[in-house]
Amino acid sequence: MALPDYIEDLEKWQSEFSHSYPVTVRFSETDAFGHLNNTVSFVYFEQGRINFFKDIGFGEEWFAKGGEGIPVTADLHCDYKRQVFFDENLEVHVKVAGIGNSSIDLHYLITNEAGKVCMTGRGRMVQVSRTSGKPLSWSKAALEKLEASQAIAG
Amino acid sequence: MALPDYIEDLEKWQSEFSHSYPVTVRFSETDAFGHLNNTVSFVYFEQGRINFFKDIGFGEEWFAKGGEGIPVTADLHCDYKRQVFFDENLEVHVKVAGIGNSSIDLHYLITNEAGKVCMTGRGRMVQVSRTSGKPLSWSKAALEKLEASQAIAG
Amino acid sequence: MALPDYIEDLEKWQSEFSHSYPVTVRFSETDAFGHLNNTVSFVYFEQGRINFFKDIGFGEEWFAKGGEGIPVTADLHCDYKRQVFFDENLEVHVKVAGIGNSSIDLHYLITNEAGKVCMTGRGRMVQVSRTSGKPLSWSKAALEKLEASQAIAG
Amino acid sequence: MALPDYIEDLEKWQSEFSHSYPVTVRFSETDAFGHLNNTVSFVYFEQGRINFFKDIGFGEEWFAKGGEGIPVTADLHCDYKRQVFFDENLEVHVKVAGIGNSSIDLHYLITNEAGKVCMTGRGRMVQVSRTSGKPLSWSKAALEKLEASQAIAG
Repeated sequence: MALPDYIEDLEKWQSEFSHSYPVTVRFSETDAFGHLNNTVSFVYFEQGRINFFKDIGFGEEWFAKGGEGIPVTADLHCDYKRQVFFDENLEVHVKVAGIGNSSIDLHYLITNEAGKVCMTGRGRMVQVSRTSGKPLSWSKAALEKLEASQAIAG
Repeated sequence: MALPDYIEDLEKWQSEFSHSYPVTVRFSETDAFGHLNNTVSFVYFEQGRINFFKDIGFGEEWFAKGGEGIPVTADLHCDYKRQVFFDENLEVHVKVAGIGNSSIDLHYLITNEAGKVCMTGRGRMVQVSRTSGKPLSWSKAALEKLEASQAIAG
Repeated sequence: MALPDYIEDLEKWQSEFSHSYPVTVRFSETDAFGHLNNTVSFVYFEQGRINFFKDIGFGEEWFAKGGEGIPVTADLHCDYKRQVFFDENLEVHVKVAGIGNSSIDLHYLITNEAGKVCMTGRGRMVQVSRTSGKPLSWSKAALEKLEASQAIAG
Repeated sequence: MALPDYIEDLEKWQSEFSHSYPVTVRFSETDAFGHLNNTVSFVYFEQGRINFFKDIGFGEEWFAKGGEGIPVTADLHCDYKRQVFFDENLEVHVKVAGIGNSSIDLHYLITNEAGKVCMTGRGRMVQVSRTSGKPLSWSKAALEKLEASQAIAG
């Protein structure tokens, strides 16, 4: 399997995920080729990402009405390794692969019940001010949460 | 074809639509049975309904940021008469079938390129106050627009 | 709460559901009004219906490649009683409300964590032959499974 | 604007697109942040890609029932440059940026009515045999169509 440029060593990369969330393929998510439509991976990434944010304590800051910062998607990438079909039970793994001033690079891994890699991916999220629309630097508390999520994984 | 209870005479009912909007079936909207997934009809109904509202002059009132009223879906019904496949060019027809104090009953008809009936449907929309969340009576201007849309059809 | 015509007595109707399935509102399922988009209820109905079919032993017959019959949606109806927001944990309840020669009438109830009714619905499914496209009568085994699902509920 | 690694010179890159397709943002495609949900760009990419394939004469080969090859998504990437809102009229531009033995690299550009860049993207498609599931080399006729699509753009 040729590796995308955000993965150096697949085994090491996989071992660094410590947060994952189950998702079962819905019938409405399949397409006429009989498998999961390619656009749905990004729905699973978003769902995994939001669960991850809640797990590390970002839920209130980002999704409560009063929060100053909101997460904006800067880019998203998905590599499709294995076809996925209706009713498969998948796991969406998420980790912080890099931390900027007001952004993070998240990596994604979707595995099937046999533990096989179905999709890998990555994407950068930027924290933006709800009022100014400009990038908003991480607070010290936020940075600590992001770093802690990596430490757990190590 | 057995008629649903909101259609008395199919030919007459069909003749009363004067607004319609084209939509082409996307690949991501099909499912593993090879046809349009049943849930997508309601996406087409919504799209037709919004185009209809814009056509009759409701766009600004309902979708502009400053408007007082917003449209809320009270119920929706779809009858599936004919399978629809990837890349078919459909027409979504919309009409006002009844007008209440703060609500309307909309009827929907989806036809294919041969003019055959694929889906029929109906649903009630209620105008609700953005601030109080309570039903908001139609203004005189709004009523006139709704009635005019029916007159055109007659 | 005005009752739709498929519900005579809400309390009795609710008590007859014995199968339910959890679903959490995804961010991508909300819309710019800030709540669950109306079209997504039908995705939840489909998901509940398929889980229900698996529970009562229809999974293999309908979703395995070799099966003769496939389920086709004849109609669908949803009544919206309460707004639903991002991240709410819902339960999709499904029951068989009527059995025909080759069809069933399914009823749906979506409740929130407080047990409040968010949506109710119904829809008829027809078993169709994969080869002829014509309605296919229930086998004796299938009928027994459908009836058993009602008995459990009683 | 920092450029993604698949764009060397934005102006030159933009000038090489000669196929584009209109799409209007649906209400059901927005999310509770009030803009187009990030996952929908990939629906627009797929829609643009399929229109492009039809335009260059691949429709019959890939989407007809009898065709030997089917297109499989190997990877997809989207860079989000500008927020997009309900009811905006967008253009999805598609071009062939590279041709392999059995694959192509497609580039995508989504612009708004003012001609501003909203999203850019790329992704590799592989032609796979419907029977063996293995990559299937382009026929001479297919290669000529792919190259012709680039010539038009030049």
